[in-house]
Amino acid sequence: MTTSPFLAPPPRLLIEPLVRGALLEDLGRAGDVTSDAIAPEGLKTRAVLAARQAGVVAGLDLARLAFELIDPRVAFKALRPDGAHVSAGETIAVVEGPARGVLTGERTALNFLSHLSGVASVTAAIVASIAAYRTRVVCTRKTTPGLRAVEKYAVRAGGGANHRFGLDDAMLIKDNHIAIAGSVTQALRRAKAAAGHLVKIELEVDSLDQLREGLREEVDAVLLDNMTPAMLREAVVIAAGRATTEASGRITPASAPEIAATGVDVISVGWLTHSAPILDIGLDFEG
Amino acid sequence: MTTSPFLAPPPRLLIEPLVRGALLEDLGRAGDVTSDAIAPEGLKTRAVLAARQAGVVAGLDLARLAFELIDPRVAFKALRPDGAHVSAGETIAVVEGPARGVLTGERTALNFLSHLSGVASVTAAIVASIAAYRTRVVCTRKTTPGLRAVEKYAVRAGGGANHRFGLDDAMLIKDNHIAIAGSVTQALRRAKAAAGHLVKIELEVDSLDQLREGLREEVDAVLLDNMTPAMLREAVVIAAGRATTEASGRITPASAPEIAATGVDVISVGWLTHSAPILDIGLDFEG
Amino acid sequence: MTTSPFLAPPPRLLIEPLVRGALLEDLGRAGDVTSDAIAPEGLKTRAVLAARQAGVVAGLDLARLAFELIDPRVAFKALRPDGAHVSAGETIAVVEGPARGVLTGERTALNFLSHLSGVASVTAAIVASIAAYRTRVVCTRKTTPGLRAVEKYAVRAGGGANHRFGLDDAMLIKDNHIAIAGSVTQALRRAKAAAGHLVKIELEVDSLDQLREGLREEVDAVLLDNMTPAMLREAVVIAAGRATTEASGRITPASAPEIAATGVDVISVGWLTHSAPILDIGLDFEG
Amino acid sequence: MTTSPFLAPPPRLLIEPLVRGALLEDLGRAGDVTSDAIAPEGLKTRAVLAARQAGVVAGLDLARLAFELIDPRVAFKALRPDGAHVSAGETIAVVEGPARGVLTGERTALNFLSHLSGVASVTAAIVASIAAYRTRVVCTRKTTPGLRAVEKYAVRAGGGANHRFGLDDAMLIKDNHIAIAGSVTQALRRAKAAAGHLVKIELEVDSLDQLREGLREEVDAVLLDNMTPAMLREAVVIAAGRATTEASGRITPASAPEIAATGVDVISVGWLTHSAPILDIGLDFEG
Amino acid sequence: MTTSPFLAPPPRLLIEPLVRGALLEDLGRAGDVTSDAIAPEGLKTRAVLAARQAGVVAGLDLARLAFELIDPRVAFKALRPDGAHVSAGETIAVVEGPARGVLTGERTALNFLSHLSGVASVTAAIVASIAAYRTRVVCTRKTTPGLRAVEKYAVRAGGGANHRFGLDDAMLIKDNHIAIAGSVTQALRRAKAAAGHLVKIELEVDSLDQLREGLREEVDAVLLDNMTPAMLREAVVIAAGRATTEASGRITPASAPEIAATGVDVISVGWLTHSAPILDIGLDFEG
Amino acid sequence: MTTSPFLAPPPRLLIEPLVRGALLEDLGRAGDVTSDAIAPEGLKTRAVLAARQAGVVAGLDLARLAFELIDPRVAFKALRPDGAHVSAGETIAVVEGPARGVLTGERTALNFLSHLSGVASVTAAIVASIAAYRTRVVCTRKTTPGLRAVEKYAVRAGGGANHRFGLDDAMLIKDNHIAIAGSVTQALRRAKAAAGHLVKIELEVDSLDQLREGLREEVDAVLLDNMTPAMLREAVVIAAGRATTEASGRITPASAPEIAATGVDVISVGWLTHSAPILDIGLDFEG
Repeated sequence: MTTSPFLAPPPRLLIEPLVRGALLEDLGRAGDVTSDAIAPEGLKTRAVLAARQAGVVAGLDLARLAFELIDPRVAFKALRPDGAHVSAGETIAVVEGPARGVLTGERTALNFLSHLSGVASVTAAIVASIAAYRTRVVCTRKTTPGLRAVEKYAVRAGGGANHRFGLDDAMLIKDNHIAIAGSVTQALRRAKAAAGHLVKIELEVDSLDQLREGLREEVDAVLLDNMTPAMLREAVVIAAGRATTEASGRITPASAPEIAATGVDVISVGWLTHSAPILDIGLDFEG
Repeated sequence: MTTSPFLAPPPRLLIEPLVRGALLEDLGRAGDVTSDAIAPEGLKTRAVLAARQAGVVAGLDLARLAFELIDPRVAFKALRPDGAHVSAGETIAVVEGPARGVLTGERTALNFLSHLSGVASVTAAIVASIAAYRTRVVCTRKTTPGLRAVEKYAVRAGGGANHRFGLDDAMLIKDNHIAIAGSVTQALRRAKAAAGHLVKIELEVDSLDQLREGLREEVDAVLLDNMTPAMLREAVVIAAGRATTEASGRITPASAPEIAATGVDVISVGWLTHSAPILDIGLDFEG
Repeated sequence: MTTSPFLAPPPRLLIEPLVRGALLEDLGRAGDVTSDAIAPEGLKTRAVLAARQAGVVAGLDLARLAFELIDPRVAFKALRPDGAHVSAGETIAVVEGPARGVLTGERTALNFLSHLSGVASVTAAIVASIAAYRTRVVCTRKTTPGLRAVEKYAVRAGGGANHRFGLDDAMLIKDNHIAIAGSVTQALRRAKAAAGHLVKIELEVDSLDQLREGLREEVDAVLLDNMTPAMLREAVVIAAGRATTEASGRITPASAPEIAATGVDVISVGWLTHSAPILDIGLDFEG
Repeated sequence: MTTSPFLAPPPRLLIEPLVRGALLEDLGRAGDVTSDAIAPEGLKTRAVLAARQAGVVAGLDLARLAFELIDPRVAFKALRPDGAHVSAGETIAVVEGPARGVLTGERTALNFLSHLSGVASVTAAIVASIAAYRTRVVCTRKTTPGLRAVEKYAVRAGGGANHRFGLDDAMLIKDNHIAIAGSVTQALRRAKAAAGHLVKIELEVDSLDQLREGLREEVDAVLLDNMTPAMLREAVVIAAGRATTEASGRITPASAPEIAATGVDVISVGWLTHSAPILDIGLDFEG
Repeated sequence: MTTSPFLAPPPRLLIEPLVRGALLEDLGRAGDVTSDAIAPEGLKTRAVLAARQAGVVAGLDLARLAFELIDPRVAFKALRPDGAHVSAGETIAVVEGPARGVLTGERTALNFLSHLSGVASVTAAIVASIAAYRTRVVCTRKTTPGLRAVEKYAVRAGGGANHRFGLDDAMLIKDNHIAIAGSVTQALRRAKAAAGHLVKIELEVDSLDQLREGLREEVDAVLLDNMTPAMLREAVVIAAGRATTEASGRITPASAPEIAATGVDVISVGWLTHSAPILDIGLDFEG
Repeated sequence: MTTSPFLAPPPRLLIEPLVRGALLEDLGRAGDVTSDAIAPEGLKTRAVLAARQAGVVAGLDLARLAFELIDPRVAFKALRPDGAHVSAGETIAVVEGPARGVLTGERTALNFLSHLSGVASVTAAIVASIAAYRTRVVCTRKTTPGLRAVEKYAVRAGGGANHRFGLDDAMLIKDNHIAIAGSVTQALRRAKAAAGHLVKIELEVDSLDQLREGLREEVDAVLLDNMTPAMLREAVVIAAGRATTEASGRITPASAPEIAATGVDVISVGWLTHSAPILDIGLDFEG
């Protein structure tokens, strides 16, 4: 369940190994020894997952799967979809079924849901901060190891977009590549010789001269690295729509509006995925 | 390489699947198409990993493995060990070998190293803040899915200690378990009937009455949940050394000294692992 | 289905890989070529699993899964639960469904069920032999590679308890550790410095002097290795309840009562898991 | 290292997953917390693996791998090969290297080595008991789940031979197959229609009439199930070399010579793999 | 669904990992970005799989699984069974369910179905070409890596039979083995000493002298390598039914009848599996 | 070793699971029973891999790995690199080491090498046929399940280029997507709203009207499906360099030059990967 019919969670084939791995890491060899000792087989329970602070939800499919893989008899009913803004105290989902299953799956479900909702929430905050501009917010490859696909989804759930997913789905020519090739021109020519016709090429530039050199060779996008707003503005003028312009380098919600005002097409922000705090979500048993 | 001969990184058998998985997630199906297109086979390079802010290092074995699994000819030499405090700009390690291998492994190595060093750094900060007390700082099970063992290690590298690693290595009786059993006493009796002789039992209590009831049944540790410093102080007096006392509930570096001053044995802090920002570490090519 | 509402079989997430692996090992690449050649698609059958000797049942979930993973249309109905004492000839379960599925899953189901019931049965025998004492029977880490979690469960199904599950859920200081540390005292101090607050520490001692040294440093449990009943009796007096006492070393059903009579808390027995013969269980087709 | 140049241990590709799995099961999430706490990084040690009772060795490659996968710096030197008869007290191998690695790998190495040597030893005993006859001793598919390939190797190391490895490498027509097909003749005809030209077909028979019916259709081998020595003798006469004859059904070392004297080609014995006690092997640290 | 009640597709345990792997290879990290962007969640569709050329169908279970693993709500209904001869344009199956699921699973389903139907079709062609003879057509171990079990099944679906499945289910003594042993006789003796009683031994021979030497030692089958029809005819006479005769070496549909006419029992053909072109099958959306 | 310093084989992390899986599929449970029975431990051998027909080599890393994973003592020395044109009889590589290892790895090594060289060879043939034009030859997603990454590499080794690697690295809007969206315009707008800034969008068109509609919305590439040369020529004129033009639909070496002459940028050919016959390569033992 998502807010838009076009926001698609990663397919189960991709998320099931993650949830399975996280559950096994929590179960160890002996499982939930406390709940097994105290909750008798057969006892049923009902619990609600509620936000303890305002934010944006992401990761409901992973939370559902955490309970389902422990015990398919546990029913998980989402009340709000991925991408929804929730307020503090708002119920996100209801879980109902065997008490052991609910207790055993709880931590893994919350670890996924609160982490991904944290990513979605910080994304939504920065997206909101530049809503006056047509600039898009994107994440980077600075993701938590193992969670790239789901963190990138959480960014989309928060209203952001995605940069490349890995080393293989687009070319990004960085300073070291330029140094190895000898020049921007040489680097771009080597890249074009190798790239398939459906692979975009982006060039990271430190200076406006590099930018001009790149544009001469034709390039799909330029990453303007750590430039001041003034330089970014000039870069946008130089690019003149011939390449997508991306501003990058320690951009925060505070600095984002000033960056967006320069007219760049895209702002990329590493901390969306590498440093977002969780959204605090709790599970409370009823009656 | 660690700061103490008794700080042991997780064995390679445990970390290799993590690093392998993270690399595969970055390589996708076609690998590093940019570096393959631009860096010719055989070209050698040398790069340094340096901290861009002060903090505590953790995760060198994972960074080394990221390069080694991509190309065993890449040599990774750590200059500072796990657990070391580094200053901004300080070199942590040197990487040398085929340029393609260094470029391809870079992001995965940094993603692990900066995340785990982030965990170690916030742990070290809170440990330092209560250095005047004998209270230990521990992490929780609120870890990033898939990374529990290495995040718990990063906490140790930062000077903290570990709570249980999962649902199976100790019993933690929470409010829901008490509700199911009917009383603290019943919950503890069920737990003891099932527990092996090497399994500790901790009881989460909301009130001093629950604490007293738990101590009557004998329990290894008590988790004092969301109590004020005043209540904690009283709880420590009541426990009188008969059980390890653990304070828990949204403790921050700011509030930690006041909590530690109550005399509790242990402070547990979820955000060490679920919300620590990364330690900014970069890789720079030389010459 | 188990005899007690608190005897919990390992979660499906833990046992499914074992059953899947065992089935694949039996199927090879071509599957059950005999049954495929002789039993036409669609033919149904009914069979019973019956004990061919008296004993205690354990492992029904694994047997059920063996059939279910081969063909979900095969229904497995247990008539007696895990932990039940069965007599020779008694029916344990009924299997009904496509003949190919029943024939193909048979051996794997029986291999698990007869092995784990064998473990449960020898455990029950030794537990019965010392029923007059409060001493508990526990297994060790001398388990069949790959089957530790389920063999430990079988010990519980037989009325025994579990020692630690691995190298990480409790500390066990053995003679070699003492030799490395230089003394019992040094070994215990190093252990305590590293142990989390929910990790118990057990000390293996060969002599009563070592025992006294260990108790001075405070320790959770002591493993009294290969001591005579007379020494064990003295050790129990010395420990005086300050540490759990565990007798270990080639204890058999014959010698167990004499050991239990010494007053030790726990008897650990390796052969429960490493040398238990199977409980003979067969599958017979009906009509 | 094996006793014969033609006794080949399973390739590393097959045994590494077993050893890796067994180590991970012992390491859990935190590894060997005791040895890490007490043995400093860098400390070296030397230990010997010695038999504590007489028997036949099998599984050295798995023991070696247990140490090597924990720490490649641990050197494992076998003094006796797989298949060798060792006496009580005899040294089988020497292990040398970092103390942590030796301590951590010890239990897994011994669990494999003592289990497989147990299988080899009981095989050797029954093989010796019928050395006067040309009858071969073979194991069955009643193996420990997950260990079939290595247990079958242990049987070979003990001087036995192997029955089929799974459901797919030969056809074995049992009573239930005959019942489904309607007759021995029909079952054999269906089997032959489906079998590839390199697949042998064995027929299980309960009576001499079934044996005669099977021989009329031509069959590679006959399994004479639970027959008395007198019946077996008659069956051998009837078969007259036209099919390999196999006696099966609760054969023990005590009854084996009488069975072998009937002239059957093969005796199959389930308890070689499902109920063999371990060979007691210990690891002792030196000086 | 297959044409004969005795043609059994590989069990789901064997094919699910193949289909899962193929889907993951197509999904990458982000899934079907086109269909997710264009087809709204919830939209249903219906499509048919139809042959675009005449041939024999094989692999319906894999195609079904491709859709089911993407979305269990997609219903796959086969109209023709594995093994069926279909004409150009004939509908093989109908797929109905969520449009995203159908679009995402399409390519993987078709890749399996068209490849395996290709194998079945070339097999059926060569089988038909020698229908006048009792000679069987078999495949070899020259299969596509990863697909051996399903390609061997496709050969059976096409009316062929299977040679050994791997290195372990039968012995095949080749020229290099003979060279190592020193002679056909020595090679056969070593093989017999090692072979279990249910393992067949086949001998590859280049000359009629080698054939005679092999038959003297008794052997189950002989592979007559690259012999002319005249030599094959002589070989069949020499073998005189004492061993299965197999002709091998670049046999094509054109040359097969002449080879079959020599009286050999079996013709083995590598290109059935290593070079069969696909059977062109398409998926068309309705309405 | 490749012909160009910029032709990069897939990293070992990607190919090792393929080779490991293929070897396990050949080893089964008992390994190479023939070679183990006949070749004594320790015997060394030397063999050459030689082309038996002219073609282009691809897959040497996989062949090397097949031997290395069986026995690291087997040395594999390539004499010609991936991408090299070899003539019939030419030696490609030399293998030297323990005879058992060479014999056991042989078939798996050859299965990979001959399959991938087959793909490279047919690619090279079609590339050569249109060498007079600037049109590139690319493969499709119609690849052998499990082998996509290596088959795409083989196409590059043969001088071709790659279309997208999966469903996630570029958008390809097909007829069904257009039908769902209602029009080319709507489909493109939905795609653009969802696509990241480094994701290219290609539109499949059946008619010149669709082409014009697509170009109006701006699109990176157009797939001209099953058009005649005349239509293709017109399409190229209409596109006028505003989008990459790709001709698709049953193109063969015979028809390729006529297609290339129309001026399209790219020709995509499914049979490069789904129907390429192997390049015949053999392994011959020396002296």
